[in-house]
Amino acid sequence: MASSADPKSDQEYGKGAPPRPDAPAVVKYFAVDVALRVLLFAAAVTGVVVMVTSKQTKWVPGLGDRDAKFKHSPAFIYYVVALSIAGLYALISILASVSVLSKPNFQTKFLLHFAFLDVLMLGIVASATGSAGGVAYVGLKGNKHVGWIKVCSTYDKFCQHLAGSLAVSLFACVLLVFLTWLSIFSLHARIHKY
Amino acid sequence: MASSADPKSDQEYGKGAPPRPDAPAVVKYFAVDVALRVLLFAAAVTGVVVMVTSKQTKWVPGLGDRDAKFKHSPAFIYYVVALSIAGLYALISILASVSVLSKPNFQTKFLLHFAFLDVLMLGIVASATGSAGGVAYVGLKGNKHVGWIKVCSTYDKFCQHLAGSLAVSLFACVLLVFLTWLSIFSLHARIHKY
Repeated sequence: MASSADPKSDQEYGKGAPPRPDAPAVVKYFAVDVALRVLLFAAAVTGVVVMVTSKQTKWVPGLGDRDAKFKHSPAFIYYVVALSIAGLYALISILASVSVLSKPNFQTKFLLHFAFLDVLMLGIVASATGSAGGVAYVGLKGNKHVGWIKVCSTYDKFCQHLAGSLAVSLFACVLLVFLTWLSIFSLHARIHKY
Repeated sequence: MASSADPKSDQEYGKGAPPRPDAPAVVKYFAVDVALRVLLFAAAVTGVVVMVTSKQTKWVPGLGDRDAKFKHSPAFIYYVVALSIAGLYALISILASVSVLSKPNFQTKFLLHFAFLDVLMLGIVASATGSAGGVAYVGLKGNKHVGWIKVCSTYDKFCQHLAGSLAVSLFACVLLVFLTWLSIFSLHARIHKY
């Protein structure tokens, strides 16, 4: 876009702040931002690992050894893909957030773009968590109206992994909400500053 | 202002040159905002109505008349509650967005608060859509690994309602993403203005 190719408008962002009496505040903001993104990365990786390692094999009378694994449900596959994307995104945004610390002129642009992407990630991770959670709940409680049996009574370890992974991804959703709030709030604070 | 050197980016942010001919741009922004919120309200109400009216009764051999309705699944109940909240929120935010048009001093504050709430709503609606979608997909395809039978082959009308409602709520998610982007972008544009 024209504005990103134009160094003049980049310089504009830093205008009025050259003596930087507010530099500690900016650093503090980016420190919180990086901390949240590191937590997001950790949560996404944990969520994926716990879900992927959930495989459990049980001997079922009359059927022999039967597996329960995440690949058996499209909802869990979507969940793993979504959380992997979120983890990768967190990693990239950590690097971007750290690198922008030394370039104050790009900070507003960074805030804008990452606020956009954070919102998108929230939508993806929240829908994946909901989707996997909905199917996992059917596995836990069954549904007598349509005759879907409980799965967790048989595959206890599998369901413990599901529960752990879902708790972590719920935490990732909360982190993404906070990250977006932080970006929005920081953009808002800049209106008064310049 | 240095931004006059870059007319293209001026146009992009919807603001004209110096002495405040930017009032139409603000009105234009709020017009788009209200339009998106009206669409969100319509989508939420449609989603709830289509889901709630999905009840279908079929005669099942050996069991007699059997109902399929959204109340049979906690995922669908959560979905209806979440979309009802989104609809109510859309209605309130339409009124707020219209009323703020005549009070320019409150516009930035409005943008800030509603950007916060839009993000929260996105999380709720996206997770509800995912949750209902995950369970509906099991109903459509079944899951042979755990012996969950298909439901949609029997209850066709019920599943058509589910599909319609889910499509509408996916649209509501997209609207919420756009609403948040619009708020963030407008906050960002104000950094240049003041």
